[in-house]
Amino acid sequence: MAGPPGTQGAVNAGSWVDPPITAVREVVARALAEDLEPSGDLTSSLLPTDATETARFVARAEGVVAGRLCALETFAAVDPSLHVEWLLGDGAEVMPGDEVALVSGRFASILTAERTALNFLGHLSGIASLTNRYVRAAAGGARIWDTRKTTPGLRAVEKAAVRAGGGRNHRGNLSEWILLKDNHLAGLGIAEAIATARDRWPGRTVECEADTVEQFEEAMTAGADLILLDNMSVDQVVTCVEKRGDARRPLLEVSGGVNLDTVAAYAQTGVDLIAVGALTHSAPVLDIGLDV
Amino acid sequence: MAGPPGTQGAVNAGSWVDPPITAVREVVARALAEDLEPSGDLTSSLLPTDATETARFVARAEGVVAGRLCALETFAAVDPSLHVEWLLGDGAEVMPGDEVALVSGRFASILTAERTALNFLGHLSGIASLTNRYVRAAAGGARIWDTRKTTPGLRAVEKAAVRAGGGRNHRGNLSEWILLKDNHLAGLGIAEAIATARDRWPGRTVECEADTVEQFEEAMTAGADLILLDNMSVDQVVTCVEKRGDARRPLLEVSGGVNLDTVAAYAQTGVDLIAVGALTHSAPVLDIGLDV
Amino acid sequence: MAGPPGTQGAVNAGSWVDPPITAVREVVARALAEDLEPSGDLTSSLLPTDATETARFVARAEGVVAGRLCALETFAAVDPSLHVEWLLGDGAEVMPGDEVALVSGRFASILTAERTALNFLGHLSGIASLTNRYVRAAAGGARIWDTRKTTPGLRAVEKAAVRAGGGRNHRGNLSEWILLKDNHLAGLGIAEAIATARDRWPGRTVECEADTVEQFEEAMTAGADLILLDNMSVDQVVTCVEKRGDARRPLLEVSGGVNLDTVAAYAQTGVDLIAVGALTHSAPVLDIGLDV
Amino acid sequence: MAGPPGTQGAVNAGSWVDPPITAVREVVARALAEDLEPSGDLTSSLLPTDATETARFVARAEGVVAGRLCALETFAAVDPSLHVEWLLGDGAEVMPGDEVALVSGRFASILTAERTALNFLGHLSGIASLTNRYVRAAAGGARIWDTRKTTPGLRAVEKAAVRAGGGRNHRGNLSEWILLKDNHLAGLGIAEAIATARDRWPGRTVECEADTVEQFEEAMTAGADLILLDNMSVDQVVTCVEKRGDARRPLLEVSGGVNLDTVAAYAQTGVDLIAVGALTHSAPVLDIGLDV
Amino acid sequence: MAGPPGTQGAVNAGSWVDPPITAVREVVARALAEDLEPSGDLTSSLLPTDATETARFVARAEGVVAGRLCALETFAAVDPSLHVEWLLGDGAEVMPGDEVALVSGRFASILTAERTALNFLGHLSGIASLTNRYVRAAAGGARIWDTRKTTPGLRAVEKAAVRAGGGRNHRGNLSEWILLKDNHLAGLGIAEAIATARDRWPGRTVECEADTVEQFEEAMTAGADLILLDNMSVDQVVTCVEKRGDARRPLLEVSGGVNLDTVAAYAQTGVDLIAVGALTHSAPVLDIGLDV
Amino acid sequence: MAGPPGTQGAVNAGSWVDPPITAVREVVARALAEDLEPSGDLTSSLLPTDATETARFVARAEGVVAGRLCALETFAAVDPSLHVEWLLGDGAEVMPGDEVALVSGRFASILTAERTALNFLGHLSGIASLTNRYVRAAAGGARIWDTRKTTPGLRAVEKAAVRAGGGRNHRGNLSEWILLKDNHLAGLGIAEAIATARDRWPGRTVECEADTVEQFEEAMTAGADLILLDNMSVDQVVTCVEKRGDARRPLLEVSGGVNLDTVAAYAQTGVDLIAVGALTHSAPVLDIGLDV
Repeated sequence: MAGPPGTQGAVNAGSWVDPPITAVREVVARALAEDLEPSGDLTSSLLPTDATETARFVARAEGVVAGRLCALETFAAVDPSLHVEWLLGDGAEVMPGDEVALVSGRFASILTAERTALNFLGHLSGIASLTNRYVRAAAGGARIWDTRKTTPGLRAVEKAAVRAGGGRNHRGNLSEWILLKDNHLAGLGIAEAIATARDRWPGRTVECEADTVEQFEEAMTAGADLILLDNMSVDQVVTCVEKRGDARRPLLEVSGGVNLDTVAAYAQTGVDLIAVGALTHSAPVLDIGLDV
Repeated sequence: MAGPPGTQGAVNAGSWVDPPITAVREVVARALAEDLEPSGDLTSSLLPTDATETARFVARAEGVVAGRLCALETFAAVDPSLHVEWLLGDGAEVMPGDEVALVSGRFASILTAERTALNFLGHLSGIASLTNRYVRAAAGGARIWDTRKTTPGLRAVEKAAVRAGGGRNHRGNLSEWILLKDNHLAGLGIAEAIATARDRWPGRTVECEADTVEQFEEAMTAGADLILLDNMSVDQVVTCVEKRGDARRPLLEVSGGVNLDTVAAYAQTGVDLIAVGALTHSAPVLDIGLDV
Repeated sequence: MAGPPGTQGAVNAGSWVDPPITAVREVVARALAEDLEPSGDLTSSLLPTDATETARFVARAEGVVAGRLCALETFAAVDPSLHVEWLLGDGAEVMPGDEVALVSGRFASILTAERTALNFLGHLSGIASLTNRYVRAAAGGARIWDTRKTTPGLRAVEKAAVRAGGGRNHRGNLSEWILLKDNHLAGLGIAEAIATARDRWPGRTVECEADTVEQFEEAMTAGADLILLDNMSVDQVVTCVEKRGDARRPLLEVSGGVNLDTVAAYAQTGVDLIAVGALTHSAPVLDIGLDV
Repeated sequence: MAGPPGTQGAVNAGSWVDPPITAVREVVARALAEDLEPSGDLTSSLLPTDATETARFVARAEGVVAGRLCALETFAAVDPSLHVEWLLGDGAEVMPGDEVALVSGRFASILTAERTALNFLGHLSGIASLTNRYVRAAAGGARIWDTRKTTPGLRAVEKAAVRAGGGRNHRGNLSEWILLKDNHLAGLGIAEAIATARDRWPGRTVECEADTVEQFEEAMTAGADLILLDNMSVDQVVTCVEKRGDARRPLLEVSGGVNLDTVAAYAQTGVDLIAVGALTHSAPVLDIGLDV
Repeated sequence: MAGPPGTQGAVNAGSWVDPPITAVREVVARALAEDLEPSGDLTSSLLPTDATETARFVARAEGVVAGRLCALETFAAVDPSLHVEWLLGDGAEVMPGDEVALVSGRFASILTAERTALNFLGHLSGIASLTNRYVRAAAGGARIWDTRKTTPGLRAVEKAAVRAGGGRNHRGNLSEWILLKDNHLAGLGIAEAIATARDRWPGRTVECEADTVEQFEEAMTAGADLILLDNMSVDQVVTCVEKRGDARRPLLEVSGGVNLDTVAAYAQTGVDLIAVGALTHSAPVLDIGLDV
Repeated sequence: MAGPPGTQGAVNAGSWVDPPITAVREVVARALAEDLEPSGDLTSSLLPTDATETARFVARAEGVVAGRLCALETFAAVDPSLHVEWLLGDGAEVMPGDEVALVSGRFASILTAERTALNFLGHLSGIASLTNRYVRAAAGGARIWDTRKTTPGLRAVEKAAVRAGGGRNHRGNLSEWILLKDNHLAGLGIAEAIATARDRWPGRTVECEADTVEQFEEAMTAGADLILLDNMSVDQVVTCVEKRGDARRPLLEVSGGVNLDTVAAYAQTGVDLIAVGALTHSAPVLDIGLDV
């Protein structure tokens, strides 16, 4: 598969696709609080307190798994005595019927944690799966990466899901690198803006948006590290790639309106990266269920 | 439109479709922190500090708006001196080109807040818009409502977006009412489970899942307030509706695999409610942009 | 006793009377921070660091225990190496001298955690104990339940304590069900208000306040699920019960000025529930102490 | 009245009896979140959005008011457009029927904030009122002060309520001063313990518990700043006071089992302070209601 | 001065040297809570509540100001009715006696906020001042930038203070760019590591540590964007600069043991940047006081 | 050494110099979040996931160690599977080359935690080391204690570091005791202020600033527990000490402009305590590094 190497069919603790554990703890604590307070899980409270069970998390659709750490943290937070065996690492391909994890212990605890764990798994695997479809469509060509169009409060785990799907991460936030868009450039010339950026924020990637081939040339001349080719046709992109020639820099990124039908054509132009906002803002859930 | 009455073309402060302000403040504070720290908006920092501008939030696709309070809070938190004029209340229909809001003030502040505000607007309007498509498809028949399959940490604002789209809200969390699913009933008989629920949690809605007409009858006999008809065919649902007859109770809810193609048929069966997980777990963004 | 079955004399992990663990962690973390910062426990810091001890939590008055999870979390948060043996589950009756729990380990840690653990135990057992007095007084008649008149920030654990005392929980918050009081009805007719509630918030319990028998009849006719008989005399309540007849619905709740002297009379009227704000807003502490 | 001078019948902004504003903001945010999420106030959402009203907070029992800042913050957090006129400062005596505050603005907002505001007012005024009863009973004699037996998470606002009632505050937490109890002294001699305390924590009040007159003498000889006379009879206390003679130090505090029947006798012994745990752990609510 | 242009002698709202407002709010709320709870400012509570005053923040030593936003937020959080006039923007040079700001309003509020505001001003101005000394010493040569050796919890505001002092910011955290140190390279060759970094984290700055000229050449060949010359002599640095020649890339950074005595020599070698951990881990406070 | 007894060369769990664990958890969680989010440690993510290592924390300069609990919590929070052996307790003296701790486990985890752990260790050991220099300089005379001039958000751990260095802690915050400074006394006479303080805040230390010998006498007469001799010469201090005579009270504290050159002279005057703001506001880091 197009996902990260070595993750097929095995858990891959400490993988580079994992989100930071600090973010995992925070998003899980919030999610459980909003599902359990003030009175806890009324329905599971009706079960015998000593009933135990082993439940299986099973994929019901084809896709790529992500969200292992969030699900593990969910079970641990609800009931540390639960035993979880994770079978497929983030980035693993699944087909309908594949088992993702086994959870054993107090039955009421499993059911209390179920929906929150599945909400993480489904949402993040949905992102990984959609990413993977783009990655496969672009195979042999450009890298697919995400945008800042993430779900508020979930950026760290969503960007990890993109990595699990074989994609890459654009800048993590407004603080990570400079991206001069048309709005910024309205009052500043490209050369002036890049010079100021290099002066004030040395060492950082300076990216520049270009809507036309002429703007692309201006940005390249001005020394941008990365140029975002915005809403260009495939032909325009090819022209930009040719004008760059053999240089390693600037990196070229296609952005704007790329979808699964058009991504292959863009991917073969020679650009380095294709930004797809849909990875995080419009990925449907991957259906994963709990079987007892 | 099928949205809440009175919201077309005007802001509707204090509307019943609004999320609680406490949740709005919390999700916005988190979203801004993840986009701005540690160094703030590097790119906007290059702009002249005294540049001001008026920007317009404009719909680029057809749909229903939601997220007004989140967007307002975003601007206020980034820069309290910004002036925002909101033109369309949550629940308003938009067509491409319609203006949603005007924001005036320091240009750098507007650009810093832009993406976070749009992430809320796009995500929540996406939910409202998908909801509204289901609501229209079911018009004249059953109500559409959501599930607990929400994005972790955003339940309060996502459920508000469902309301803005003309939908209704299933239980808010595990603590709000009882929903006996097959897993719960494996070790408890329906009658026993409902009796225990009424004993321990009086006053609360007791809902029961039924996979077959026989289970439906058992649940009705046992006195469930609400019966979830799980993955039944339209014919099975019709049978259940007939068996209920003229009684106001139990309410009947269809759940499982309903999509935009099948919702109309289910909606006309006489059931009261149709649960659609996709409203919150698989709604694509509604494209809203910022024009300067 | 009138408490939950099976809890006498034994810890009952995972019991339906437990509060959600997410709330427990949060309230304990806050309580410890306010007692320990900035400099920790000055007095215990004078003890030898290697002194160990076994301490007993002992009831000094008659009542019903609650707060086990909060106390356990307190000890674990102060010093995970402490060993705690809990002897009596939430809901257990105690007499003066009964041992509730044993705590062993570093003596300084035990003393540092002591007051916070006791504040939880005393406050929550106080609520359970007062609840239990009402429950006993109403034995054979109506259920006792609580109100939203809880101590700010402690609702989840206080409502759990009411359950431990044999009581039941009214709605958890403003979001859980509809309760139309006189103030709401001033500008809305009962029938209109209930109809709007059922339209906007289907599936939820709709409760209506009635100050007179006439209002009760109006609310019953309008289809309220639950009717709050506010400040009625016992005779008025009897009249309402008779008018309801044999129907399972609406549930009838007495509220307003019920105390330990009058609760028995109301409990025998045939109403389903009696709301007592005092359970959470005026319960004196149950005296529990630490013996070394 | 025995409350703080100058607070009768007038708001006293910035008064020394106020809690720190940081604590007020935190407890109110928590209280509102637990009452409003996830779906807000369902019932008030049924009201017309443009209805406005003026409501009066009225005492329904005799007592002393506290909690003004918490209530103000509650209204401001729910709806900053509400106008609140506070009529009686914390520490003011009220009789049934006295108006405490007027709130004007959106009616739905007033009702949404009502219960949380009243929970603060009732609980904190309950503490102030009980305190004040002790203060009056001890009038002309010892000061009444509180303990660390406060409701978890509310210490700052509860201790402020004690001040509003005319009482004083014992140490704020374990970090503020040293209090050597019998458990601490089991392994340390008094003289040794005090010497270590003065060495490690100079400048801090060193308090010592004494269960007998002999222990009192030992503590006085060892130089304690404050001696807690634990569960002593009035006669024993008188003996200790006489042994202290004319010295300003040590301060003497009576603690243990003092109630409204016995407080006067202890107050006239010449001790400086009487600790009453009940002020914060067992104060019944002061009944304050909202009239529209 | 060597600070940012345009900030001399005037407040510069929205300046690029400002920290993100989200971080400011968070650090101030924490700082006030730790200074005020549980009982508030005991000493100021002794003042008359109606006393007002105008206080001046005055520099008592030569340096560069930083921390304006933190101080403003401190006053606003303690008492929104205070009026603050800020006279000197972050980055302004001050001499002993220069006024930094005027604060008017309730005297007790000013004194309550004083120390927290001064702690921010003194600490952050201390960082700006030390930075500025390095910047002046390096004038005409390399830029001075900071490290991740910041005070835990204060990174955003400390990095802003470095900018106010005329310095620049190295990466904000572990997530912003790649920095291959000797420990990382022990198990990975430089070329392999850089290739993996470019594959997994495209668009990001890839920095490589070099302890010798040979390692420098290896890193340059491998295509590092930025090379950290670790603990090299001035001569070694000169050699590296010469080997880079006229290329704009890689940027060269000197790190390790640079102090105010040696910085000038390094600054004139032609390197681009000099990293100084002391800016944030060892800057003494700038003495600023409050005069009434 | 001048540090706390019994800590030389051995870990001293539960020592009185430790900060409260609640504060440790909070500051570490914040510090890790600011270093790791949103994308985690990019560089360590390049390492093989199965590489393990043992690393040594080694002092590179002479000083006194502090921060053990913060460092331990950092490793545990990043990766609970790491094994840490701590060799030297807080308060231990180190020379260059001394090992402080050994950490074994996943190499990537060690490197991810390294900087945050070192930032705590370096900063807090820096405070302990500077404190210890003052303590040694004052040996045989007055105690050295700190001030409220701490780094915002870190007061609890910084004050613990002062204790580790052999110093003592002045009041923890504004709420702990009364300190009447010139600003407070401008509108209140000393006697009046002290009387009000004793009335409102009984049991608390009442401290008074004196700028002259006359003021000292006035404060002593008024019964202050502690007198701060502000910016007095050694001779003035001697005069005050003599005027106090043999009384144990008031304690005398020297404050203002004391440095390592002058501290010995003040320490031998007979005053009890010397306040040094520099301990927490201007301590340079103690250089501790990680060797693999």
